[in-house]
Amino acid sequence: MSETVKYLLDENRMPTFWYNLVADLPKPPPPVLHPGTLQPIGPDDLAPLFPMSLIQQEVATEREIAIPEPVRAIYRQWRPSPLYRARRLEKVLDTPARIYYKYEGVSPAGSHKPNTAVAQAFYNKEAGIRRIATETGAGQWGSSLAFAGALFGIDVHVFMVRVSYQQKPYRRALMETYGARCVASPSEETASGRAALARHADHPGSLGIAISEAVEVAAQRPDTNYALGSVLNHVLLHQTVTGLEAMAQLELADDYPDVVVGCAGGGSNLAGIAFPFIGAHLRGGPAVRTLAIEPAACPTLTRGRYAYDFGDTAHLTPLVKMHTLGATFTPPGFHAGGLRYHGMAPLVSHAKELGLIEARAYHQIGCFEAGVQFARAEGILPAPESNHAVRGAIDEALRCKAEGVSRAILFNLSGHGHFDMQAYMDYFAGKLLDQNYDEAELSMALSGLPAVEA
Amino acid sequence: MSETVKYLLDENRMPTFWYNLVADLPKPPPPVLHPGTLQPIGPDDLAPLFPMSLIQQEVATEREIAIPEPVRAIYRQWRPSPLYRARRLEKVLDTPARIYYKYEGVSPAGSHKPNTAVAQAFYNKEAGIRRIATETGAGQWGSSLAFAGALFGIDVHVFMVRVSYQQKPYRRALMETYGARCVASPSEETASGRAALARHADHPGSLGIAISEAVEVAAQRPDTNYALGSVLNHVLLHQTVTGLEAMAQLELADDYPDVVVGCAGGGSNLAGIAFPFIGAHLRGGPAVRTLAIEPAACPTLTRGRYAYDFGDTAHLTPLVKMHTLGATFTPPGFHAGGLRYHGMAPLVSHAKELGLIEARAYHQIGCFEAGVQFARAEGILPAPESNHAVRGAIDEALRCKAEGVSRAILFNLSGHGHFDMQAYMDYFAGKLLDQNYDEAELSMALSGLPAVEA
Repeated sequence: MSETVKYLLDENRMPTFWYNLVADLPKPPPPVLHPGTLQPIGPDDLAPLFPMSLIQQEVATEREIAIPEPVRAIYRQWRPSPLYRARRLEKVLDTPARIYYKYEGVSPAGSHKPNTAVAQAFYNKEAGIRRIATETGAGQWGSSLAFAGALFGIDVHVFMVRVSYQQKPYRRALMETYGARCVASPSEETASGRAALARHADHPGSLGIAISEAVEVAAQRPDTNYALGSVLNHVLLHQTVTGLEAMAQLELADDYPDVVVGCAGGGSNLAGIAFPFIGAHLRGGPAVRTLAIEPAACPTLTRGRYAYDFGDTAHLTPLVKMHTLGATFTPPGFHAGGLRYHGMAPLVSHAKELGLIEARAYHQIGCFEAGVQFARAEGILPAPESNHAVRGAIDEALRCKAEGVSRAILFNLSGHGHFDMQAYMDYFAGKLLDQNYDEAELSMALSGLPAVEA
Repeated sequence: MSETVKYLLDENRMPTFWYNLVADLPKPPPPVLHPGTLQPIGPDDLAPLFPMSLIQQEVATEREIAIPEPVRAIYRQWRPSPLYRARRLEKVLDTPARIYYKYEGVSPAGSHKPNTAVAQAFYNKEAGIRRIATETGAGQWGSSLAFAGALFGIDVHVFMVRVSYQQKPYRRALMETYGARCVASPSEETASGRAALARHADHPGSLGIAISEAVEVAAQRPDTNYALGSVLNHVLLHQTVTGLEAMAQLELADDYPDVVVGCAGGGSNLAGIAFPFIGAHLRGGPAVRTLAIEPAACPTLTRGRYAYDFGDTAHLTPLVKMHTLGATFTPPGFHAGGLRYHGMAPLVSHAKELGLIEARAYHQIGCFEAGVQFARAEGILPAPESNHAVRGAIDEALRCKAEGVSRAILFNLSGHGHFDMQAYMDYFAGKLLDQNYDEAELSMALSGLPAVEA
């Protein structure tokens, strides 16, 4: 039997630093603008929301940023995470491709999110912060920050998009088990929430609104900060621990990826696995194709505009230049709640503009089909978000077969799907739809983009 | 900060054999009897249900039984599983105890069950079997065998206790994702099922009935075998990989357990972690207390009779001597579906009679309390079954504190609770009850035990 192979990394080879792509880019990313003045912001503008250490990481230009020892000590509970050569899947696909996957579902919260949640909780604790407010969609991020908050004794207050709050009580229960407080957004607890409810009493919520609520709470209370689970530079930075590990593990396998694949919602898991390889190439290493897989129903990279936009609906956040569908864009229903954000990480967007990242949009049914094929071959049931990466990797492997070429494909299996069984049940029952977004709605959302010179 | 420490074992130190406690016992376990003749059964009697290799393991007396290389190759996907020193929990408890836990939730199915599912699927495949019928309660076993069946190309047919089938659709969805067929038991597909439905059209089902159905299907079709997820000697044997690994990992920690704790339903996860230590003691090694924690609502070891009984309600299985509440005993509702069986593994029962195992019964609310405390300290959310072991370990640690003694406590964290969030929600909502079993029902069930001389 062709057996799946695990490449474990000795604990003493766990990365001691995170990798900062900015150091190797041929062109610096565009500045972040103040929402009021439209001028580049300084560290002080962000101080009400983040500890200074994270603000410094947000604007850092050095290549390597040391991972504090207390963060590494917690990482060690599940890191280095395994890298697998998917030999059983290769056999099923009858492909000459060498398929590798980095599995982040081994973390206590079941996804890659704790990589940054633990770091953010650590820096906030160090800064004397007692409470962190945040938003969550499907709940992967909220439960990861709840986990990290429990370890550091920080209260975590999660605004969960109302429709997910109602449909996904189990992720909410996980947050509450970790001791976090979770409320449906829009809520009565903030001005942004009350405004949304005034417009629409049964408002289903959106990530943009939930961000507004969390930012509002954090800005008002000196003991409370804000945390974001993707998009920002420092979040992407923390996720590079996955790519750095994968690089060392592929060395053990005596291989190097021709293509790196990740699903892309806010962009952090893709950046985490891909940036170290992109950087190595920019420093003269082998060329690597990076493939971002996004949902066709929320096609930020493939159909969005590269423009300055707000991160939230209430326009409380700074303006960042990114691929965006417009902060008011509401995608049709699909099961990868982590991929429903209207924007993309500015650093991923910038890298795409520089030609360092390709993007492809997939509908969900084909992604679930790939996820089931993967589960039956490899035994691991992926999260719906991760199924996008699985689909991308399988398609690349099938292309290898068609072309009769063996390439090394690395993808990030960002989380398990044990909290997402309803989605699999809907898939098997034939209830999933491949809905397209509304073109008129997209036009309207894009026309609402702030008028800022690029 | 006191950080939880992980003891990883190099892959080349993964056990090459399973450990068979029978070799070291001062007295052999009582024979298994034929349900018709009441005489000791021979290998041929079991041949319609199991491949000969497993029948040989069932009656084996040698100490070490080699793990076939194809099984080890699959084990390697998640084994050796981590052993942790729970320093964060120790700190919360302010105890001088050294608490270690072996974490089996890292397997693809999220529990210890794949340790035997993979082995059983391998031996059945080797014997040319195309289909395996089995039963499942909460679904941990069914999903594990479905996983193993997918890897070996064996069809898996699961009879799932009806009340769980209705209440736990997500475990069922996991089985179906792996490609298994799952039906509610009692079903119309077997004579045993139809008989149960004739007595009670809305029959909620029981493990005893589901076993009858699976055994019936397997006995009738030459291409179909039966598989059991606990109780039998060969199942306990396969689980010893956990205890053997833990022993090597504790060597790395330069420690040795004073007490080993496991939850006990059918007995296999307890046996897996404890038997290697019990055996080492019987061969002259250090004394180890073994503590079986069972639910107060289904107290097989603490309130059952040590007597010959059937494994199922339709009396299709052989008779084994075990601690039993009687095959007709129906426990009141509680959330650890894996601990609802009326009997206990004969080898665990025998070891208890020999004074090698202690048992303690706990109500569920205290177990969930322990599970939440554990999750907040260690980050891992245990399955309701595993919460019993957590409670037992915490109580031992608190006793260390009261006595001012530092002891090493090892427990088996047999699975994660990501499929059991409804139970946690009920716990937080104050909806859980600590129900006692019905004494009259127990008396009646015990009075129905077959009249066999012990």
